[in-house]
Amino acid sequence: MKLLEDRIRTEGIVKNGDILRVDSFLNHQMDVSLFREMAREWKRRFADAEVNKILTIEASGIGLACVAAEEFDCRVVFAKKTAGNNMDAEMYTTKIISFTKGKVFDVVVSKRFLKPGDRVLILDDFLANGCALLGLMDLVKQSGATLVGCGVAIEKGFQEGGKRIREMGVRLESLAIIDSMEGGELAFRSEE
Amino acid sequence: MKLLEDRIRTEGIVKNGDILRVDSFLNHQMDVSLFREMAREWKRRFADAEVNKILTIEASGIGLACVAAEEFDCRVVFAKKTAGNNMDAEMYTTKIISFTKGKVFDVVVSKRFLKPGDRVLILDDFLANGCALLGLMDLVKQSGATLVGCGVAIEKGFQEGGKRIREMGVRLESLAIIDSMEGGELAFRSEE
Repeated sequence: MKLLEDRIRTEGIVKNGDILRVDSFLNHQMDVSLFREMAREWKRRFADAEVNKILTIEASGIGLACVAAEEFDCRVVFAKKTAGNNMDAEMYTTKIISFTKGKVFDVVVSKRFLKPGDRVLILDDFLANGCALLGLMDLVKQSGATLVGCGVAIEKGFQEGGKRIREMGVRLESLAIIDSMEGGELAFRSEE
Repeated sequence: MKLLEDRIRTEGIVKNGDILRVDSFLNHQMDVSLFREMAREWKRRFADAEVNKILTIEASGIGLACVAAEEFDCRVVFAKKTAGNNMDAEMYTTKIISFTKGKVFDVVVSKRFLKPGDRVLILDDFLANGCALLGLMDLVKQSGATLVGCGVAIEKGFQEGGKRIREMGVRLESLAIIDSMEGGELAFRSEE
């Protein structure tokens, strides 16, 4: 999506070789007018998917998910990170490793909000190694709901996550895919 | 706001005397069509305030803030909770006690996203003892920005926060104020 790529080129900051800071518009300060355009693009790409629920994970996925939910006319559920073990019988639970934070989170969703009839689109801001999306996919699977696909804003195409998820046969729509940021130079994968 | 009060009456669950669960529409599953109506109501109440930035705190304030930001045509900044001390010179930092989680968080906002010229509306989902709002107000003060007011979805009017903030002369617009939930019976404060 050219609008997003242009924004990443203009405002993104590459640090320490493989960290991309986009906190001026995506995940600390949030430019909601950009989110609206991104939401419309996901709606266009998943137009035939009959999405009736959007699942994301706190915190930075929530804004994107809420704006997108208006396009899909559906509700959002955000998975919550918890510090300790959660053996609550009311919750679906999975574990997600955060490499940026260097720890493992238990991530939970109430069983009341993911059901077998649901057609779930998973949304998140970043895809790198794929741990967050795989964890969310596990929650959908536990619930018996149907996963229609995943949408992410920025995929780091030089890490494993995207490849792994596509090889599982999951429909993955990344609005910008960065194939390289060597020397601070951003190279985007061209859209087919 | 009658729409929100009705929703709390229909779906809210009172637990252990003073806990109100509204996770089916506000802070776990999120009904974005309701958020849109709430956002319009805040816009109506702060129509003259020339808001150019909305500040909230992760996680459950983010959805409300993003939807409201479209009404105010401005950006959102969400304050981040961090586990340890953050003495980053790039950050404004404050401490917020979470009674529900039983711990103290350092809460940070990048200095790049709160500036003296900003006219800031603080939004959050809940107001009880006021710790979160007071912490966010402290961040605004540190930045030299102008605080135009605070908006919350649900105020627990039987706790101290709302009174304390109004006594400081801060404009506070709560869309539903619960004066009592004794015996599980919700009593809302009538709107003037």
